[in-house]
Amino acid sequence: MSGSSEWTRIALLRAVLGGAAGEHVLCGIGDDAAILAPVAPQGGALPGGAAPLVWTVDSAVEGVHFRRDLLSFEDLGYRATMAAASDLAAMGARPLGLLAALVLPPDVSDDDLGAIAAGQRAACDEIGAAVVGGNLSRGGEISITTTALGVAAAPLRRDGARPGDALALAGPVGLAAAGFALLDRRVSPAGAAAAAAIRAFRRPVARIEAGLRAAAAARAAIDVSDGLAADLAHLAAASGVRVLLDPGALVSAELREAAALLGADALELALYGGEDYAVAVAGPDVGALPGFVAIGRCAPREEGASDVALLGPDGQLTSLVARGYDHFA
Amino acid sequence: MSGSSEWTRIALLRAVLGGAAGEHVLCGIGDDAAILAPVAPQGGALPGGAAPLVWTVDSAVEGVHFRRDLLSFEDLGYRATMAAASDLAAMGARPLGLLAALVLPPDVSDDDLGAIAAGQRAACDEIGAAVVGGNLSRGGEISITTTALGVAAAPLRRDGARPGDALALAGPVGLAAAGFALLDRRVSPAGAAAAAAIRAFRRPVARIEAGLRAAAAARAAIDVSDGLAADLAHLAAASGVRVLLDPGALVSAELREAAALLGADALELALYGGEDYAVAVAGPDVGALPGFVAIGRCAPREEGASDVALLGPDGQLTSLVARGYDHFA
Repeated sequence: MSGSSEWTRIALLRAVLGGAAGEHVLCGIGDDAAILAPVAPQGGALPGGAAPLVWTVDSAVEGVHFRRDLLSFEDLGYRATMAAASDLAAMGARPLGLLAALVLPPDVSDDDLGAIAAGQRAACDEIGAAVVGGNLSRGGEISITTTALGVAAAPLRRDGARPGDALALAGPVGLAAAGFALLDRRVSPAGAAAAAAIRAFRRPVARIEAGLRAAAAARAAIDVSDGLAADLAHLAAASGVRVLLDPGALVSAELREAAALLGADALELALYGGEDYAVAVAGPDVGALPGFVAIGRCAPREEGASDVALLGPDGQLTSLVARGYDHFA
Repeated sequence: MSGSSEWTRIALLRAVLGGAAGEHVLCGIGDDAAILAPVAPQGGALPGGAAPLVWTVDSAVEGVHFRRDLLSFEDLGYRATMAAASDLAAMGARPLGLLAALVLPPDVSDDDLGAIAAGQRAACDEIGAAVVGGNLSRGGEISITTTALGVAAAPLRRDGARPGDALALAGPVGLAAAGFALLDRRVSPAGAAAAAAIRAFRRPVARIEAGLRAAAAARAAIDVSDGLAADLAHLAAASGVRVLLDPGALVSAELREAAALLGADALELALYGGEDYAVAVAGPDVGALPGFVAIGRCAPREEGASDVALLGPDGQLTSLVARGYDHFA
């Protein structure tokens, strides 16, 4: 194909689109969400008291992000909503609302549309927000583009982690990838682990409350949806730190069992499986945050060393090669 | 096809998604944009001074909203941006920023992407805002979904018009449809009218400044992008009025000339041509607003009569049948 990687293309967009923003744009292209300081309708500053807005958009495209044979229409609506909300969670923001732009091929019936909306509604009820508008269009493939708007007194960004900070994680990693693999191979073994994995894939949960709890304690955060290693590499690069992970903290009993059903490596799934919509945070005391699990720490950046490494029990480091999901690769 | 009309589907979505919104959702599904009162990150009311947010999303889908053979990639970016911004203009809002979710097939090169972004940037420069983030995804067809966020002390809605109000219009109507027809028929005659029509189609302009001027004087407003008659029928239905239009005020000299080149009826183009991104407003004195042209007035609703009618010079009324662009028809 003729295009560059997703990251190169984001840099291209930043070069063309950046620099035109007003002073109220506190964070533009490159983090989980944009951060805006609201201004008065006349264009001047507000009289005070207005917290920054956190704002994101996310697309779920048929054949790229989902397959209709593995998910119900209700699942599609649910997942698309949670994927957008997860960007707010990673900034420590409270959702104000969501808008959804639906592109629907002719074979999507009114009942199917109703099921998509029911899934959106269920996800919204879970996070305490609502879809307050949107757009409908015909198209050749289903796509659901969701934009979520939130508010945060001090939004978390990717670039605030410092050497010595602890790393913590809210939400499972690897389980959604295990669930996808089980469904894809048409093996749906009985048992709690398989059910949990399939549920993690079909009904991921944005960690809004965890993000709000982290907002005061963390110095940096990132949405984990492209795979933990890849997303932490972004946090490490933005913050100028090196991330050292405790492999024992990444694999839950459920993930170990689900991986065994697949004959897969549980740690591989935890590091590289995507679509979890977990939130990783860095800060001095984040390991003690309710709803979070301590997974490692930040170290000084080292010339020529990988941004992310596994820390063995005897202190030896294993470099991880960046290997996330690239939509354009 | 299996789905209902766009309007039936919007009603379906409102039934499933409505009712979950908090008190800060001042206007949800059904107007040009949603209206939110910002709340504090803790969930309570803000200390005051924060004006309502106006928020919209709009998709431009290849084969539905545009054809690559009639528009450059730069035009695509420009039009998609203006289409979303026009919803803010119709609410009398000042843009805070935009996010763009791009779905791109493999044959869209980095240069093409750069051209899309250049078009977005040009449109943003025109309206005094910026694309501050977005999302990139692969897909089978190009789609550009743009979400625009603005602020307005007293956002204009569709439902505020009263009998006796004047109607006024900012921006041309019919000219974009004429431009499309000229390009589609591969006739590009020389002359100012043809050039203006083609420009109106390729580079429509959201009427942000006009909307801001109207915000204090108008009681209702609507984005005109699906055809003037169809959009005014929405305003009439929401406000509970009947709209009477002066046909002589709708056809500019440019439109008359462009229509003649096509052998088309200029008034038909003005009433039913889409993609203009004009703004129609209603209020006691809106006819005198700078940048607006008086086009008619609002009358009491009449049982069994059409919502929109043409008012002849001798006072006789010609009912207009609703005939807008329905993406699902």
